[in-house]
Amino acid sequence: MDILVIGAAGMVGAKLVNKLCAAGEIGGKPIGKIVRHDVVVAGPPPASSFSVETFVGDLSVEGEAGKLVASRPHLIFHLAAIVSGEAEADFEKGYRINLDGTRHLFEAIRKVGGGYAPRVVFTSSIAVFGAPFPEAIGDEFFTSPLTSYGTQKAICELLLADYSRRGIFDGVGLRFPTICVRPGKPNLAASGFFSGIIREPLSGAEAVLPVGDDVRHWHASPRAAIGFLMHAAAMNTTELGARRNVTLPGVSCTVGEQIAALGRVAGPQFVKRIKREPNETIMKIVAGWPRNFDPKRGQALGFKAESSFDDIIRVHIDDELGGKIAG
Amino acid sequence: MDILVIGAAGMVGAKLVNKLCAAGEIGGKPIGKIVRHDVVVAGPPPASSFSVETFVGDLSVEGEAGKLVASRPHLIFHLAAIVSGEAEADFEKGYRINLDGTRHLFEAIRKVGGGYAPRVVFTSSIAVFGAPFPEAIGDEFFTSPLTSYGTQKAICELLLADYSRRGIFDGVGLRFPTICVRPGKPNLAASGFFSGIIREPLSGAEAVLPVGDDVRHWHASPRAAIGFLMHAAAMNTTELGARRNVTLPGVSCTVGEQIAALGRVAGPQFVKRIKREPNETIMKIVAGWPRNFDPKRGQALGFKAESSFDDIIRVHIDDELGGKIAG
Repeated sequence: MDILVIGAAGMVGAKLVNKLCAAGEIGGKPIGKIVRHDVVVAGPPPASSFSVETFVGDLSVEGEAGKLVASRPHLIFHLAAIVSGEAEADFEKGYRINLDGTRHLFEAIRKVGGGYAPRVVFTSSIAVFGAPFPEAIGDEFFTSPLTSYGTQKAICELLLADYSRRGIFDGVGLRFPTICVRPGKPNLAASGFFSGIIREPLSGAEAVLPVGDDVRHWHASPRAAIGFLMHAAAMNTTELGARRNVTLPGVSCTVGEQIAALGRVAGPQFVKRIKREPNETIMKIVAGWPRNFDPKRGQALGFKAESSFDDIIRVHIDDELGGKIAG
Repeated sequence: MDILVIGAAGMVGAKLVNKLCAAGEIGGKPIGKIVRHDVVVAGPPPASSFSVETFVGDLSVEGEAGKLVASRPHLIFHLAAIVSGEAEADFEKGYRINLDGTRHLFEAIRKVGGGYAPRVVFTSSIAVFGAPFPEAIGDEFFTSPLTSYGTQKAICELLLADYSRRGIFDGVGLRFPTICVRPGKPNLAASGFFSGIIREPLSGAEAVLPVGDDVRHWHASPRAAIGFLMHAAAMNTTELGARRNVTLPGVSCTVGEQIAALGRVAGPQFVKRIKREPNETIMKIVAGWPRNFDPKRGQALGFKAESSFDDIIRVHIDDELGGKIAG
């Protein structure tokens, strides 16, 4: 089982490669090789019983995708994207990276030919949905994104389904919840504060909350995200039929409930580190985002997330802080 | 009001230009000029009080769209596409014409700049939907096409909405029902028989019916189609909000009900000209197609179709046969 990870230097990509190296196999098949690809240099590869190769390049450049699939990897994780804030600020870059980059990859796979049809796991996003919403978004609700990022992800979902239907590859599109608590530095995603209000207090710093306590959103931990990817890589895709894109389970809660969970799991002193600084721009963006889902299909397909925001905080403390929090 | 019609040599395009020339105005604004564009030569232009220019070219060729929008037409009808059967048979051509051609047009408009933001009316299709369906497809049902044609139309809908949201143009996407009774020769669309079983008997010829009488489908006449386009060109688009694509009203009926209507409107002798020749391939394709809609939004927005299949047949007799039918 040879694996290609595109977007391997990102937070999710790095965790996925760590997991694959630790597991040594996927779906019962031993891993022969992992190729990491990203537009920036990934950190040193983790210890593994097989080779981990690393390439730096831009998937949106003609010919780049062809080089990556020439060795016919059996499994491809396509995680590479620029985030919502950047895709909104730079129209051309968003379409070039998030749409054209993905299409180049799909086309490169098609052009390998000779019966080559790898499993392709693609990270989509709940940003494919746009307000107004029902109380909980069902599995057959339409995609009417309110950002260019969401538009690009929704288009890639359609391509993924058509290429899969044609037998060009065996695709699974995963509509990731907002990943929370996101470790490390904030990125350009407008959703950054959902993680910031937990991560910063737990590491002894202040966090800014730009929206009201009643804002409801949809979360899953980085650990759950890796679980989604591993499950999609090994699942029986005949269960998907022609509907290749799956809304994943997650935790729906308000910012107020996030903060209450922080108080319960860590203590009230951490809650005091959250500063409320309302920001009209962010409030307006967030108002168009999904709040809650009824992800029956994703659950039936065996995808699993946390069952409470308390658990999401505990995962962060265990996986990122070595089980300890700053007092 | 300068108007660009892309796909002007097709059946709908030609009828639209005729209508525009006869009306002389649209939404109360006098027409200054019409530019017709298609990959094949359109017929002679109809009589009009303004100039009708005709260009032949391929929208999917780099630079072609830029030439068309350089004169900053106020209103653009984008009707050009290859049909479902051809897009399924030729993967690359389908994506090149139906997706890249449309994207070139949208990009060319963006690059004009200087506040240029024309009304763009785009013909999408009910092929953006794929089985299994609810009893009647509502306005928020998801797009999970089962053909490459439907995929390409669904992607163009997403682009149209995002470009409109960004203020690049003022787009309206129309999910056309199957146009019936389609005049003239059959095209490569697998849906051709829905028209054939009415058109051929009425002109004295035999027609082949490749599916069962219980097959239900969604229809509107060519006259209704032109009405949809004229309404979309002049409507107040603020009512659309960010949801720029509209499922249009139509008539849901079975093939058996179509045939019964033919008997009522024309006479039983016409029904005898329909030959049942079941075709597994066509039956399989048609099984994935929408059967019925609940197009509340399109109706509320003022779009109008026929209210019975009898009316659809009468429109054909009036508009195509001069009110007379072969005995």
